Parts: sequence; C-alpha cells; structure tokens
Amino acid sequence: MAEQNAMSLEGTENIARMEKELRYISGIIKQQGRKILSNYTITPPQFIALQWLFEHGDMTIGDLSNKMYLAFSTTTDLVDRMENNKLVKRVRDEQDRRVVRIHLLGEGERIIEEVIDKRRNYLNAVLEDFSEVEINEFSRLLTKLHKEMIKD
Amino acid sequence: MAEQNAMSLEGTENIARMEKELRYISGIIKQQGRKILSNYTITPPQFIALQWLFEHGDMTIGDLSNKMYLAFSTTTDLVDRMENNKLVKRVRDEQDRRVVRIHLLGEGERIIEEVIDKRRNYLNAVLEDFSEVEINEFSRLLTKLHKEMIKD
Repeated sequence: MAEQNAMSLEGTENIARMEKELRYISGIIKQQGRKILSNYTITPPQFIALQWLFEHGDMTIGDLSNKMYLAFSTTTDLVDRMENNKLVKRVRDEQDRRVVRIHLLGEGERIIEEVIDKRRNYLNAVLEDFSEVEINEFSRLLTKLHKEMIKD
Repeated sequence: MAEQNAMSLEGTENIARMEKELRYISGIIKQQGRKILSNYTITPPQFIALQWLFEHGDMTIGDLSNKMYLAFSTTTDLVDRMENNKLVKRVRDEQDRRVVRIHLLGEGERIIEEVIDKRRNYLNAVLEDFSEVEINEFSRLLTKLHKEMIKD
C-alpha cells in the first residue's frame, strides 16, 4: 500500500529541479557579487559582515560570528581590519561595560548601500521579462522560504 | 511628466526584498552545503567541479574553469587532486588527440549523487509548508530566473 504522505512524481521532480536551480542561481549571484566588489576596497567576507550590521544593527563579535558561521577568532580579525579601514568601530555598552558591540561607520554604510544598490540593479535587469504579478509572487515565495530556513 | 517605464513603488520594494532574500537564502544554502560535505572527502570547489561534470558531461579544463569562474591553473590543480583521488580521469578525444576532457569516474559519481540527494532532502524539509501549487510556481520562476541570468 502506498504511503499517504509520499510525494507525487511531479513533486519529486520539482524538488530536484528547485535544488538544481537554487544551486546554479546562488553560484551566479556569488560571482556577480564578486564582480561588483572588484570596484571596492572590501572583500566578500567584509561585505557579509557589513550587510549584517547594516540590516540588523550593532552586534557583538559573538553574534556576528554566529551569523557568518565563522570562528570567533576569524571574525575578530575581520573586524580588526574593518576598524583599521574606518568602516566600523567598537562601542562599549552603556548599561553593561563588559559588552562591546560593532558599530557601522559612515564610510562602511556608504559602501554597503552602494553595493546593495548595484546588486538590485542587476536583479532588476534579469527580471525584465517578469510581469509584476510574477515578481510579487516570486518575492513572496522567497520570503516564505527564507522564513522556513531560519525556523528552528 | 513621469516616465512610462518607471517601476511602481511596489515593484521597487519587491526588487529590494528579492535581492535581500536571495542573498540570505544563498548564504544559508552555502552553509548547509558545507555541513553536508563535512561527511565527505571532497571540498566545496571539488563539489562544484563534480556537479558540472555530472550534469553537463565531460569537459575540457578550459570549459570547466569558465563555468567555475576560476583561473586555468587553479582548475588544473583542482582536477589533479580529484584525479589522484580517483574521482575523475583525463580522457583524450578520439577524433582530435590534442583535446583532453575530464571524465567523471564511478566513485565521483557516487559521491555527487549522494550529496545532491542530501541537498534535495534538506530542501524538501524546508518546503514542507508549501502547497504543491506553490512549489510548482516557485520551481517555474526559479527556472525562468536562471535562464535570464545565463542569457547573453
């Protein structure tokens, strides 16, 4: 007797196709991101760190290393280099002086905004043949997927 | 007078959201891929090389370095290591003996199939709350996006 929850053949094929498309799309986005960064002084890991500070606010090195899946020591080195380049600074918590957070500086913010803007322009160009309805639905589905991925 | 082609505010917001979601989703997929590979003897770049050979057949080192956006010398080193590990072998073209292609061996195929299968299982699990209609549409939109990205 077939299991009730077994996926249909079409469902199985769609998962296989999605896994493959997401794998290739991620590769292209990564390469496109590197191309954009080649005009800037920051490295890809620095871009990811600045992205977290820009979109989620000040963070401790511990938080940042968790978000970036990096060792604490690697994140410390990364932050040191960005602090030397005046992209971020360390700020002591007013309530609890033992806590130090990384704060994005003006120049770091300017760079991250410019880079994200270029990434949006690229995406906008490749979505040229998508209708507004498709873009709406695509955006909704990606948001839902991301939510499911970070749900524990 | 407003430009006819100007995107609606909603359109602009959707592009911004999609860029962000794709950026985070790519990061999570990358990390998830690394987690899966930690149980195997291959590295992330080796996974990408095996993926190309598995899904697109035998390739010259030149083709492979283009696909992987790597320098020819880096790709040569990568292929040398995989050849030493009996994952691939170099095969001379029967028609044109000057042409050498990289061919996937049984052990390379076994590993890549297992790893892709684990990636599908992960995706299947995070898509649990998606209806079959949503998965169909999501799959179609990703395929369309990928096609636009590789169109020149």
